[in-house]
Amino acid sequence: MRWARYLADGKTHYGIVNTDLTIDEVEGSPFESTRPTGVRRKAADVKLLPPVIPGTFYAVGFNYLGHTAEAGEFLAKDVKIPKKPDVGYRANNALVGDGDEVMVPRSSPGVIQFEGELVAVVGKKAKFLTEENALDCLLGYTIGNDISERYWQKMDRTIWRAKNSDTFKPMGPWIETDVSLPDLVTTIRLNGQQVSQFKTNGMLFGVARYLAEISSAITLNPGDVLWMGAEAPSLDMRAGDVCEVEISGIGVLRNPIVAER
Amino acid sequence: MRWARYLADGKTHYGIVNTDLTIDEVEGSPFESTRPTGVRRKAADVKLLPPVIPGTFYAVGFNYLGHTAEAGEFLAKDVKIPKKPDVGYRANNALVGDGDEVMVPRSSPGVIQFEGELVAVVGKKAKFLTEENALDCLLGYTIGNDISERYWQKMDRTIWRAKNSDTFKPMGPWIETDVSLPDLVTTIRLNGQQVSQFKTNGMLFGVARYLAEISSAITLNPGDVLWMGAEAPSLDMRAGDVCEVEISGIGVLRNPIVAER
Repeated sequence: MRWARYLADGKTHYGIVNTDLTIDEVEGSPFESTRPTGVRRKAADVKLLPPVIPGTFYAVGFNYLGHTAEAGEFLAKDVKIPKKPDVGYRANNALVGDGDEVMVPRSSPGVIQFEGELVAVVGKKAKFLTEENALDCLLGYTIGNDISERYWQKMDRTIWRAKNSDTFKPMGPWIETDVSLPDLVTTIRLNGQQVSQFKTNGMLFGVARYLAEISSAITLNPGDVLWMGAEAPSLDMRAGDVCEVEISGIGVLRNPIVAER
Repeated sequence: MRWARYLADGKTHYGIVNTDLTIDEVEGSPFESTRPTGVRRKAADVKLLPPVIPGTFYAVGFNYLGHTAEAGEFLAKDVKIPKKPDVGYRANNALVGDGDEVMVPRSSPGVIQFEGELVAVVGKKAKFLTEENALDCLLGYTIGNDISERYWQKMDRTIWRAKNSDTFKPMGPWIETDVSLPDLVTTIRLNGQQVSQFKTNGMLFGVARYLAEISSAITLNPGDVLWMGAEAPSLDMRAGDVCEVEISGIGVLRNPIVAER
């Protein structure tokens, strides 16, 4: 099942996306309870929003071998391969949905890069999960593009603007509840041309391991999201480019790049 | 004016705190619009909540000279004095209010420490602020205790559990809208005994400078909070202790420490 969050008639709704790309609207949200309203719309007629605004926005830093090596090169320092899951954070101000513009910040001296990521969406409150039962707390999965400004990432003490400038966190197009992690393939296209493809689940530490680790100290809440990290290559993008992140079985997250006005 | 957020009759309300510690309830929130309901309660009869659940939870790492040196010692590495404002993040799962228990996590091998901090609360959407107009975007100020587990802070790659374990971010008791930054004094008491006192505004980079810097790349939104960092000393606390952070003119944030059950 696919849950979309969208704007229609000036209001925010959740709805179930059908295979013919119509959406059956509901009252409420899949994180609480829902009731069909009987309204059906075409997906093309609504504005898709990030499928959830998380209470806490978790993100894995280095979770693929290729990207860890690549990051060591561009940061010109020794980035060690993580020996255990240590999660980080991203910021809600940066969230945009499928189709929304990603801005190269006015204050940025450089270019921006994509990082196509699987996003796990928490559906139930959970603590002290085991690797065996961890996935039970999830509502499903969506797609994230962890847009990064590498000049700032190299020169700042934290990743606040390198990773969290306005519009730097496209997420969507919807939440898919039926996913077989081992089968997923991530494909990234820049201006229609494939520039990266990798086994989505080829992570150093998988979703279940991360959820179990986080929940050893932290309560996961409905709506929290966990971005699972990206594989190399992460390539330059400039105003005028269009970036698509596809994860098989989930969908395509497509965002044009513009200069901040 | 003091804005409290609290639980009464099973519902969350905002209200204005009077000098006699009664609260005049309102409909709505000070981040949107409010209307008096005519209901007056005693503060002692309600459960104070964190005065806001932020959309984005900003936190300054090193912003006082003493704490920067202290951190270098306990982390056993060279912590440089920041040359510019680089903000970090904390996580909403960890928020609790005044009077709530702070838990030493079941999975922690160590003790926890306090860090008493001034918290700036954003009231208006803002971008591209200057140092001169930056404070205009604020609703007011509250108090935060940036509870830290130093063993994890030293051994993990990120501060996810060292700083964001459940209950590690007490915030309150309320938002004070009338504050003179240069006059503020932070006092920390452990079990009733004063253990730290410093000029709150004796920061490396002040609130206005931080807001201007952040908003060069990021839109600040109503309800966002910015924790301004702590001065040394940061001392050990164990189950049974009670920690109070007082900032003159704002109030006292008091939390008992317990062991996670």
